[in-house]
Amino acid sequence: MVRHLVESQQLSVDALFKIFKRADFLRAHQKSTLKNKLLTTLFYEPSTRTRLSFESAMLKLGGSVIGTESAKEFSSVSKGESLEDTIRVIGAYSDIIVLRSSEEGAALSASMISKVPIINGGDGKGQHPTQAILDLYTIYREFKRLNNLKIAIVGDLKSGRTVHSLCYLLGKFKNIKIILISPPHLKVGENIKEYLTKHKIFFEEREDMNSILPFVDVVYMTRIQKERMCKTEYDKANGCYKINLSNINLLRRNTRIMHPLPHVTEIDLPFEVEENDPRVAYFRQAENGLYVRMAILEDLLLSKRSSRLSILQRRR
Amino acid sequence: MVRHLVESQQLSVDALFKIFKRADFLRAHQKSTLKNKLLTTLFYEPSTRTRLSFESAMLKLGGSVIGTESAKEFSSVSKGESLEDTIRVIGAYSDIIVLRSSEEGAALSASMISKVPIINGGDGKGQHPTQAILDLYTIYREFKRLNNLKIAIVGDLKSGRTVHSLCYLLGKFKNIKIILISPPHLKVGENIKEYLTKHKIFFEEREDMNSILPFVDVVYMTRIQKERMCKTEYDKANGCYKINLSNINLLRRNTRIMHPLPHVTEIDLPFEVEENDPRVAYFRQAENGLYVRMAILEDLLLSKRSSRLSILQRRR
Amino acid sequence: MVRHLVESQQLSVDALFKIFKRADFLRAHQKSTLKNKLLTTLFYEPSTRTRLSFESAMLKLGGSVIGTESAKEFSSVSKGESLEDTIRVIGAYSDIIVLRSSEEGAALSASMISKVPIINGGDGKGQHPTQAILDLYTIYREFKRLNNLKIAIVGDLKSGRTVHSLCYLLGKFKNIKIILISPPHLKVGENIKEYLTKHKIFFEEREDMNSILPFVDVVYMTRIQKERMCKTEYDKANGCYKINLSNINLLRRNTRIMHPLPHVTEIDLPFEVEENDPRVAYFRQAENGLYVRMAILEDLLLSKRSSRLSILQRRR
Repeated sequence: MVRHLVESQQLSVDALFKIFKRADFLRAHQKSTLKNKLLTTLFYEPSTRTRLSFESAMLKLGGSVIGTESAKEFSSVSKGESLEDTIRVIGAYSDIIVLRSSEEGAALSASMISKVPIINGGDGKGQHPTQAILDLYTIYREFKRLNNLKIAIVGDLKSGRTVHSLCYLLGKFKNIKIILISPPHLKVGENIKEYLTKHKIFFEEREDMNSILPFVDVVYMTRIQKERMCKTEYDKANGCYKINLSNINLLRRNTRIMHPLPHVTEIDLPFEVEENDPRVAYFRQAENGLYVRMAILEDLLLSKRSSRLSILQRRR
Repeated sequence: MVRHLVESQQLSVDALFKIFKRADFLRAHQKSTLKNKLLTTLFYEPSTRTRLSFESAMLKLGGSVIGTESAKEFSSVSKGESLEDTIRVIGAYSDIIVLRSSEEGAALSASMISKVPIINGGDGKGQHPTQAILDLYTIYREFKRLNNLKIAIVGDLKSGRTVHSLCYLLGKFKNIKIILISPPHLKVGENIKEYLTKHKIFFEEREDMNSILPFVDVVYMTRIQKERMCKTEYDKANGCYKINLSNINLLRRNTRIMHPLPHVTEIDLPFEVEENDPRVAYFRQAENGLYVRMAILEDLLLSKRSSRLSILQRRR
Repeated sequence: MVRHLVESQQLSVDALFKIFKRADFLRAHQKSTLKNKLLTTLFYEPSTRTRLSFESAMLKLGGSVIGTESAKEFSSVSKGESLEDTIRVIGAYSDIIVLRSSEEGAALSASMISKVPIINGGDGKGQHPTQAILDLYTIYREFKRLNNLKIAIVGDLKSGRTVHSLCYLLGKFKNIKIILISPPHLKVGENIKEYLTKHKIFFEEREDMNSILPFVDVVYMTRIQKERMCKTEYDKANGCYKINLSNINLLRRNTRIMHPLPHVTEIDLPFEVEENDPRVAYFRQAENGLYVRMAILEDLLLSKRSSRLSILQRRR
């Protein structure tokens, strides 16, 4: 049975820690475990960052890469082919596929028929599980724990898919407090709130950010996603929340500022602060993505299905 | 003298079988025969499938790949450079070039001046020889013979370039019967008919498909190519010919359905049938392309010119 | 301290000869010195030729490549991210970055903050130092000297950035005479003239080309860059200067015609002349780019900072 990584709920706490340990190991050691393995990056929506980090991960493990950064425009889909057929054909050319799509559910559909592992590299307003895993790995590296944490998530919580995946993963740990900070029209969806309630995760929703900053371990900023809302919504939301020199010192010395990047106006700190203030964690976070993706590629390509700790087969 | 693969007529029956045997071998064995060899995929017209299969073939043989999937837009041609000059420069950077163009004759022009082998990856309404070779290889694998076959070719026989290359290759075998099924305005060109007549290949032209289905070994479906005709022509042709649950059982158990893919409405079978009915051969056909292309890359890069069985130097 | 290649002034005469010698060596020997090293080609402006030659250079040295040929359209910059942030993130995924931009100064900005070496692959009207180095390497290979040369540079000397970089490098050698030939509205900028004067390089400006041809060692043709001027300017300039069968024999037998390519109407010679007349040096020049880029990649990735002969750290 082929295993896929479609959504962050698939990952048990043990599987997460197995990935984190392997990521720590791969950061320190050069390994060529994926020699003779071939990755396809099939991107229907641009994402240079996600694509390049997966490709770098594969190449650093000795594997090879083929791919397209603009499948929408150039591929057979423009001739009317179904995604499923494309996956079946490309699955014959390569050993694993990272799929990025603007359609929610695309990775799930692909995983239903694919004979090679599918990694969801983002599916519209759906999930982006490797982003959530690297976010969690970053918290783990910065705090040496994943329990007993107070985390403010700030910005567009409605369409920000990294937020959804992250909340699902945080739900697996103990004594987590989540403060969801957003303008009223960009609040997190009901399904996430139900999930958090069901898993007894404490959360509260707020509109003001600054009053919360002194009390959190992590402030996780997100970009207002212009491309996923109308102009009126964007103008109302843009500029609501900013970390800059006037409020950064509301944060405790051991608090961490995270961001899935790219950031625009919501973070406005000088280069020297970004380089030297240990609270700025988002560039370390981006680098962590490389090692997490190396560990995930290895897990999906090398782990035996019986392995209790590896990424679970998604139940259909 | 550099050898190129420009059109399917270049290939003798012996050369074809040499490629088929090598493709069978490469399917079963991991080989790194093309270490230190570099392929450029130079695509002036999008074709993710053809490009990715060539790149996969090269990488699986230990070689490396550079390329562009949108040469038209991005390359020096947009600054007014001739194709010949582009080929001369890129030939200095790599050991072999796969060229895809919307201009008929582009691969021939390139091969006239190139110092490295040129593979025609499709030249507009011209040829697509590696597609024809993989089609033939598929028939060979499914039937264990290439003589004594009855083959229906269905759809847009006017602009479908895979049809042209395939007919040229079928012309080399004995007791082949070709039934050309198309709407009146999309009939195959006179040059193909003359070729078939000259090589004593029996063929007939028909408009109805279903009455033929019980009598053929292969039904080779093709897509009505919207992008190569006007809307009126397209509307007249679209939907004329379909394989679906209502007529698939007109086919004998050992008949094979082939298609160069991508398919749109001309094949409409449920997933379970596509996966389990042995008559559905088009996904095996797509996979065969990988191994055929590996064998072709090897032949052009490694065979000595004197080798009697390799791809012939095209006469100019 | 990380070293970058931002502008041609960085290179001492000794460093240039070190690169030329290594380029000569790499032309003759297969080396895998960059195993486990990863190059990113980050191109905000199309340049298939420059990109492919860097990628080929990296792969031939055993390294790996990731990249994007249309960063402008597809990358996070389209979401509003700064170039500096993109560089910081991509620097975490790879060991060296070739940056191509339409903005003058982009490579300098990138080099100010990057933790991995930046190579300027062209920055708008700014510089294109590897082009200038390969130009000089070509003169060195054709004449076995870089002193005592008379060089005509012809065409758009205002926006032609290769001309700027080349003049800066020629300024390092003895008894060089430069004849700058252009229409009045496309003369070379004052800054270059000041540089040449300061370095006691003899130069003169002319409008007529043919009268000069019998007296030069090199005629360096450039393309009138349609994309960098208005239509009126282009029409005035286009067709002013041409090398064709009617004037090529004004050149001495040991004169060399160079061109950064792609060329359009400014060179109009039949294929046989381009292949057989030793004066046509521009295809050898293009090939030289591969070996020069191999040597530069090695220098930036392998040389110790202390190495007196390697590319200098740019003073900020």
